[in-house]
Amino acid sequence: MAGLNVVYVFSRIPNLVEELKLSLPMVKFINVESDLELKKAEVLIADYNLMVPHIYNLPNLKWMQGTWAGLDHLTPVINRPLPFILTRFSNQGFGQMMAEYVITQITIIERNMIQIFANQKERIWLKEGKINNYRTFSDLSIGVMGLGLIGGYIGRCFSTLGAKILAYSRKPALDPKMDFISPNCYYTTSQLSNFLQNCDYIINTLPSTPETKGLLNGSVLQDCAARKAILVNVGRGSIIDESDLVNALEKGWLSHAALDVFNKEPLPTESPLWTMKQVLITPHVATISKANQIAEHFKENWKLYNNNQPLTAVYSFAVGY
Amino acid sequence: MAGLNVVYVFSRIPNLVEELKLSLPMVKFINVESDLELKKAEVLIADYNLMVPHIYNLPNLKWMQGTWAGLDHLTPVINRPLPFILTRFSNQGFGQMMAEYVITQITIIERNMIQIFANQKERIWLKEGKINNYRTFSDLSIGVMGLGLIGGYIGRCFSTLGAKILAYSRKPALDPKMDFISPNCYYTTSQLSNFLQNCDYIINTLPSTPETKGLLNGSVLQDCAARKAILVNVGRGSIIDESDLVNALEKGWLSHAALDVFNKEPLPTESPLWTMKQVLITPHVATISKANQIAEHFKENWKLYNNNQPLTAVYSFAVGY
Repeated sequence: MAGLNVVYVFSRIPNLVEELKLSLPMVKFINVESDLELKKAEVLIADYNLMVPHIYNLPNLKWMQGTWAGLDHLTPVINRPLPFILTRFSNQGFGQMMAEYVITQITIIERNMIQIFANQKERIWLKEGKINNYRTFSDLSIGVMGLGLIGGYIGRCFSTLGAKILAYSRKPALDPKMDFISPNCYYTTSQLSNFLQNCDYIINTLPSTPETKGLLNGSVLQDCAARKAILVNVGRGSIIDESDLVNALEKGWLSHAALDVFNKEPLPTESPLWTMKQVLITPHVATISKANQIAEHFKENWKLYNNNQPLTAVYSFAVGY
Repeated sequence: MAGLNVVYVFSRIPNLVEELKLSLPMVKFINVESDLELKKAEVLIADYNLMVPHIYNLPNLKWMQGTWAGLDHLTPVINRPLPFILTRFSNQGFGQMMAEYVITQITIIERNMIQIFANQKERIWLKEGKINNYRTFSDLSIGVMGLGLIGGYIGRCFSTLGAKILAYSRKPALDPKMDFISPNCYYTTSQLSNFLQNCDYIINTLPSTPETKGLLNGSVLQDCAARKAILVNVGRGSIIDESDLVNALEKGWLSHAALDVFNKEPLPTESPLWTMKQVLITPHVATISKANQIAEHFKENWKLYNNNQPLTAVYSFAVGY
């Protein structure tokens, strides 16, 4: 139990140690300055990108708390189960940020707000088309792919705004906690086609795993053609190849897309997505890791860890996230 | 009771009669084509602007259901109590639409999304400043002025997104239904200064009444200077004179404003607000009256009316809305 009051921190997130100290004043937090310190760590809070060369080389490590939700930096180097517990950082704060982002992109698209802002520049007061006759959330069937902490939170927010929520998840049955989804709006992996046919919006929150890579490739999105669905991708770019996404937009299977994640980031200058009128691009900022929220999340897990209870958001080698 | 199954409709909202028929198939809805028909009406659904010349001249009218929330068109001609019950149209759908709008404007401002969209045009992937280090709702104290159906709903949505909600209302005590507001965050009219000092955002949902006209005029907003608050006005423009609003922005008492309503609409071309970088202007479209929602609202009131129960959203001459 010697290490139990010492936690090492290996991260570039501003103010993280300070916030951790505020959150758990009895614990000693040490900023990792050398490989030697890193090797001492029994409990570690770390950014995934910094961990790439070290992941199988930390003899004392029992638990690592990550500082982001997506494990993309680490998955290429994880080739066997990890010799320690890895917990991702995914909390309600992430869900809230993601909900803010997705609500905003939907509203911008539905109300043609890009046009409103262009009109403002020209001092034009114009109430026509979608500007004055728009769909609201209560008119929309919104499909959420992935029902983890983030997807679940987004769905709940949309439901509060009056939308009909459809869910797509690899889990065979609906979690009763997701009480804002009706059972006939729950689709498992074999029902993707049916799910897509019924969505006005498709919100992808899925992580990048062998099962999700290319899931919307080829002509899969043809199922969206009747409703001219809109894709909001806040999960990972790998769910669809860029050329297939461009094709789905050009064919009109999708009427718009709001994209925060891409197969290659930064999105290359030559990508046709940049200049498609029906596409909104944000540079992977739908959520950010905030030091105070990581500290809060760590505090919860820290209590569980010290009581030998299961931690939250544990990475599984078998599942892939 | 002869007229009880006939309802007259005097409105330019598309598809309203069709939606009403779907909602109450047993009732006969008659589109008003002449003054003669209008004079027959015992129960009437009408747009306020169309009613201006008729308001005191309808001998049979017992109840008029309006099709919008704001009574601005009628208030100049209402000089004595009305000889019938007037109900405004203000329902959860309005609250939801308003919440969508306000969440979106807050997110656009906090995350500098206008810059993100400008960057997209130039194919620039830029993560710096507010784009990558933004406040989220859980970092914000959001003040809501007016706790009617709309203000209450907006507050509840913000609370779900993690914001701290402050409320300003003329009512002397907090309604226990507003359980997302803590009692020490409730401010009545005498506490406006204190309220303003504690807000990161001020969301005005107040109607235009003698009490609210010019409420934020002069140097009242100087109380916002320390937090550099942001004003989102979705109530009525009359809460602050344009010159005083421009002054508050120029002095930095307010850091931004998102405005959907103005003292004069359309906003005149010469208004300095159009070109202020810290101002977002939308042409009074934060909410729109949707036929299906009016029909739903009318159905509820119709049931109450036929059971001699008090209707919802009843206009009061004494209160002014």
